[in-house]
Amino acid sequence: MGYSSGSIDDNDVVEFAQALLKKASVTPADEGVQGILISQLERMGFSVTLLPFGSGEKKTLNFFARLGEHSPHICFAGHTDVVPPGGEGWVHAPFSGVVEKDILYGRGACDMKGGIAAFVCAVEKILKTWDRRKGSISFLITGDEEGTGEFGTKCVLEWMKAQNQIPDFCLVGEPTNPNILGETIKIGRRGSLNARVVIKGVQGHVAYPHRADNPLHKLASLLNFLVTHELDKGNEWFEPSSLQVTSIDTGNDVTNLIPGEVEIRLNIRFNTEHTGQSLKTWLNESIERFIPHYSLEVAISGEAFLTPLGVEVSELQKVILEQTGRNARLDTGGGTSDARFITHYCPVAEFGLVGQTMHKVNEQVQLSDLRGLETIYRLFLQKMLCGAGHETV
Amino acid sequence: MGYSSGSIDDNDVVEFAQALLKKASVTPADEGVQGILISQLERMGFSVTLLPFGSGEKKTLNFFARLGEHSPHICFAGHTDVVPPGGEGWVHAPFSGVVEKDILYGRGACDMKGGIAAFVCAVEKILKTWDRRKGSISFLITGDEEGTGEFGTKCVLEWMKAQNQIPDFCLVGEPTNPNILGETIKIGRRGSLNARVVIKGVQGHVAYPHRADNPLHKLASLLNFLVTHELDKGNEWFEPSSLQVTSIDTGNDVTNLIPGEVEIRLNIRFNTEHTGQSLKTWLNESIERFIPHYSLEVAISGEAFLTPLGVEVSELQKVILEQTGRNARLDTGGGTSDARFITHYCPVAEFGLVGQTMHKVNEQVQLSDLRGLETIYRLFLQKMLCGAGHETV
Repeated sequence: MGYSSGSIDDNDVVEFAQALLKKASVTPADEGVQGILISQLERMGFSVTLLPFGSGEKKTLNFFARLGEHSPHICFAGHTDVVPPGGEGWVHAPFSGVVEKDILYGRGACDMKGGIAAFVCAVEKILKTWDRRKGSISFLITGDEEGTGEFGTKCVLEWMKAQNQIPDFCLVGEPTNPNILGETIKIGRRGSLNARVVIKGVQGHVAYPHRADNPLHKLASLLNFLVTHELDKGNEWFEPSSLQVTSIDTGNDVTNLIPGEVEIRLNIRFNTEHTGQSLKTWLNESIERFIPHYSLEVAISGEAFLTPLGVEVSELQKVILEQTGRNARLDTGGGTSDARFITHYCPVAEFGLVGQTMHKVNEQVQLSDLRGLETIYRLFLQKMLCGAGHETV
Repeated sequence: MGYSSGSIDDNDVVEFAQALLKKASVTPADEGVQGILISQLERMGFSVTLLPFGSGEKKTLNFFARLGEHSPHICFAGHTDVVPPGGEGWVHAPFSGVVEKDILYGRGACDMKGGIAAFVCAVEKILKTWDRRKGSISFLITGDEEGTGEFGTKCVLEWMKAQNQIPDFCLVGEPTNPNILGETIKIGRRGSLNARVVIKGVQGHVAYPHRADNPLHKLASLLNFLVTHELDKGNEWFEPSSLQVTSIDTGNDVTNLIPGEVEIRLNIRFNTEHTGQSLKTWLNESIERFIPHYSLEVAISGEAFLTPLGVEVSELQKVILEQTGRNARLDTGGGTSDARFITHYCPVAEFGLVGQTMHKVNEQVQLSDLRGLETIYRLFLQKMLCGAGHETV
């Protein structure tokens, strides 16, 4: 492990983030990155439980670390794995953690090793003044958020539940700001459903269409319905649900052949007006109206959720305003995150760095954002854990 | 060559067809089948010109044979190549030419070695009585009708044109009867056009559809239009033109990705209300109405044609009625044949065996049909060439 020197309170968030970025922890690899965190947290007094799940190629490293035994229990959730560096064009090697002109480069800089480093350093800075009878802090760290997530946060939460370690509030450090630090707090996420429909017809020769039943012609009305139907108008916290057909495939190379079937795949991003099950029922009923013979497979990757709005989110908004001058928008848009698992156990919100370069070549973070986020996290923890008379919601 | 014994007039149509069926002349192979015909025609006095075209793998055997120098010049057009035997389930090996219970089995039995054998035997039978100052008979035989046809009938016709050998009327021996001998004479064929449309959109993430432009959603309106639009109502000789979408393909396996483009392939079987070019224009105009960015490729495999109705077709109808008791329907339906090339040079009609088993396992012909067709061909030739005062149309 390259990063283990220094006394408890001289960690710099940039140097700490650099140490994490130098580990090529492309899902499901760890390459020692969790070790750096664990050493640091143990030095800070946390008790750490290693929670590897899965085996063989699916082996996933995770850990839970907690300091303090009292309420309120504030948990920070994050992932140490990153997506692959992708194509050419990196100005600095993706796992070198180079700083140039006040910008830190590297795969994971904003998504989300930078966010983890900011929280660790924020915690470190409150240790001297924090009265540990006034709450506790924990880390839920997984090595598989960018992959299937099968043996990551979901399994750790089950363990936490069994160990009576469910927090009062969880903050996920995903990069929630589209353009500038302080824009957006995520307080929920849309649900996501994937469906595969196979429409069945009768194969035949194009010269004799009356002897065949062209599934592509049956598809026309259904497709028209699916892409024009309004699932809902959205609601106070959510934009309207959206259905996207992602693939239609026949695979018929024979010019004079009417094919026997066609496959349609689609994805629905849905708000709290629906559940995965209600949409599955709607899909079945809709297809049936147009197509007599079909098969439908539905996979629900996450239900829509909205976190109960409490004092944590309003305090987070206040410290963001204090630090950045921006009124953070409460948002539920965008892709999914591990918050979809956490919401089943406790209130969860997400706030992190600027995500503009995440999953792209030259992923980066401004040093000022990294330091700004550390301060926001620190002020938030102080409000939650060091204030007088604070009650858990 | 297995079939070369016997004197001029003791050929039996069944035995002659069997000899042809024993040659596994799957396109573009010949396996000696044209040699059998050439020997026989030369014995009957025909002068034969070998007309191979193409080279290497595309080498195609064809020949032209003519007897007599006068008008009317009646030509019989046929192909000696056959489609592959295909799957399991042949009760007799596909190239054994077995007769069982008055049925002749084999690949090519009806499509169309049986038809060729019937015409050769019919000609043989009129040789003694035919006054050769009253017309001439020719054969246009190709070895590539079931394949691309690139070096077959089309090339032979060009040669015939250059040699001043274009007939007054051409009879194609394709199996035109759907169920029973004498049902149908084809006097034209629909045209056929294949098109490939690529609809272009903008790729993106399903969670942010406003940043993408889903080509599958643009496809919906176009597809609906294409499959419901009435190209025409048909006319006296043709059924309505028919458009069949044969494949829609995206090839997007990523569930959260909006694809960048989709390919649609379609075939139009069209009547004489259209030309390939007019349909290409219609396609362009129609797609443009729905889709701003697309590409269109059109391949016209044959124009629609209707043969001028003259004395030949009416005489053919008469002898069919005489021989079978059936009023043959004049038809233009079904697939394409080499008649689509011949129509550019002279009037052409098609009449042959029952096509029920063509291209299928256990292709077969009833011996009574084979003998009936020989008689129809003989009576037709006698009316055309042995009658008094007949004028060429």
